[in-house]
Amino acid sequence: MTGSRKKSVLIIGGGAVGAIAALNLEVGGLTSVTLVLRSNFNAVNEHGFDIKSCDHGRVNSWKPSIVRNSIPDIAKESLPPYDYIVLCTKNIPGIPPTVVDLVTPALPKANSHTTLVLLQNGLHIYTPFLETHPQTLVLSGISMIGSEEISPGQIIQNEGDRLIIGAFPNPNIDSPTSAALEFVSIYQNGGKTDCKLGEDVLHDRWRKLVYNACLNPICAILGLDTGRLRLAADGEVIEKLVRPAMQEIVDAARANGVVLDEDVVQKMIDVDPLQSYLSPSMLADVKKGNLIEYENLLGGPLREGRKAGVKMPTIEMLYYMAKGIQWRTMEARGMVDIPPQNV
Amino acid sequence: MTGSRKKSVLIIGGGAVGAIAALNLEVGGLTSVTLVLRSNFNAVNEHGFDIKSCDHGRVNSWKPSIVRNSIPDIAKESLPPYDYIVLCTKNIPGIPPTVVDLVTPALPKANSHTTLVLLQNGLHIYTPFLETHPQTLVLSGISMIGSEEISPGQIIQNEGDRLIIGAFPNPNIDSPTSAALEFVSIYQNGGKTDCKLGEDVLHDRWRKLVYNACLNPICAILGLDTGRLRLAADGEVIEKLVRPAMQEIVDAARANGVVLDEDVVQKMIDVDPLQSYLSPSMLADVKKGNLIEYENLLGGPLREGRKAGVKMPTIEMLYYMAKGIQWRTMEARGMVDIPPQNV
Repeated sequence: MTGSRKKSVLIIGGGAVGAIAALNLEVGGLTSVTLVLRSNFNAVNEHGFDIKSCDHGRVNSWKPSIVRNSIPDIAKESLPPYDYIVLCTKNIPGIPPTVVDLVTPALPKANSHTTLVLLQNGLHIYTPFLETHPQTLVLSGISMIGSEEISPGQIIQNEGDRLIIGAFPNPNIDSPTSAALEFVSIYQNGGKTDCKLGEDVLHDRWRKLVYNACLNPICAILGLDTGRLRLAADGEVIEKLVRPAMQEIVDAARANGVVLDEDVVQKMIDVDPLQSYLSPSMLADVKKGNLIEYENLLGGPLREGRKAGVKMPTIEMLYYMAKGIQWRTMEARGMVDIPPQNV
Repeated sequence: MTGSRKKSVLIIGGGAVGAIAALNLEVGGLTSVTLVLRSNFNAVNEHGFDIKSCDHGRVNSWKPSIVRNSIPDIAKESLPPYDYIVLCTKNIPGIPPTVVDLVTPALPKANSHTTLVLLQNGLHIYTPFLETHPQTLVLSGISMIGSEEISPGQIIQNEGDRLIIGAFPNPNIDSPTSAALEFVSIYQNGGKTDCKLGEDVLHDRWRKLVYNACLNPICAILGLDTGRLRLAADGEVIEKLVRPAMQEIVDAARANGVVLDEDVVQKMIDVDPLQSYLSPSMLADVKKGNLIEYENLLGGPLREGRKAGVKMPTIEMLYYMAKGIQWRTMEARGMVDIPPQNV
């Protein structure tokens, strides 16, 4: 313990991303983490996480300070407000609960104490909070981590936890950047990760979509991991599908005032090492029978690009294919009905 | 037995299509069928086919006159030439044996006796025979059957055996249409099927591609059967993927001098009844771990369309997606090597 009080951090969602964030924050020593789990609660509560991490090495039977299976209702439970709430769940519009519903019970009324960190994908995911929690500072967290939960509580992190933190725009907040900087400093206090301040949230979010709207859904649709995608059809899947899709995202970003580096397409194609066989989030979700975040990863940039007059035929096709795959998963989960066979 | 000698028919390939053709020809009473099987030979040789057919009813433990597990070498085996050879195998360019290799041992040298019937998909599949067997009459067979082999020798035929027979062009043959008419008459002699002469083979083949280059691969890529495809995402998969792809085939056909009926797109969307949950050939193949016929079904029309200056963005994307899926199957079958993981 240092002289100053530890920061209290509530992390909602302890899958492949949230668990590493929890581990890294507690390793840093400046925070006390409460982690809210859902599907893996029983496994983690009983045995802790087993983590094999390129940043942290092997960590067995590990738990953060507090593990819970429900979101704290701080009023009902008479809990002090958290300093930070980090949201690491999937963000799937149209499927309740909304992100606002999730976070609200853990925020003080008329909050100005707790800073919210959205460690989630998508362009404008902060806008619902502007209406419901106008005084709450919302930070953007963009993670380029390569991490997968192979079974409940078993996590393999193959690629370093590179995190870009920035402040979403909010006219009611005076100096959002200082809060963002504080979070960066506590996140990187352990010296294991590459966490930095991003000056331009929208730029950083479009940049990540170059990967997430293209390589990620194509892996999911074709059932190929990152290494296999690069090998498939002697590279033609990359050249004829991934590269054109990425270029459409670059074009849509530019039409929205965001100029990405010229080499961003090639960099994103090469970002996963050859001979590393990783499942990007959508492929991992499809394999596990989970819903995919196609609205935020494909629908968002498609709509922004279209509004700005950009043609995005590849992204549009990926969007509707992802919709078809989502529907297949929804049937498997009993969320849609199929009329009986009529032979 | 009627007074005239029965026609001898060799059918190569006894899957969902070949088995029904064999059954229908023998039910007609004018032919004696030899059926060459591969993966299902043992099952059929021991127990016969079990067929549940909308045309023929339930047929159990049924076998055609002769069942074999190899293609007859009529010279070595001193067999008389067949009147017809019907090719019902998959046609996958690049994967040996070629269709010519398959058929040649069963044809007489300098053949002009045996008529070849290609009951296969694709536009110009007859051209290899023009070079190797210029005197052989090659008929086109286009089947719109709905039939699936659910396990070796177990066949469910849900949609009627509608077969269009025509003669592929061949400058060395005098009256190809009379041979085509003869085949039609023996095929429909049992009165169970809708077999007719098609005057324009190329028209009929483009027409079938409206289904086979669009609905068929989209089902395979998304893992959705025909009924689910129509339900998926409240019809958006049909409207945003299937219909645009079909229109591109219609446009490519027109640019190649083939004018399809105006309502062909809607007709093909509606061809499988609602509440029938069928796996088109590519989906059935993917599910069984078989290679798919994407070169003939997608590559062929894509190349013809491009040559004629037609933009086919949807078909092109489906083509490369099908290539990616083919590569996944090839890995599963040990046909491509994956370098070891390098963490």
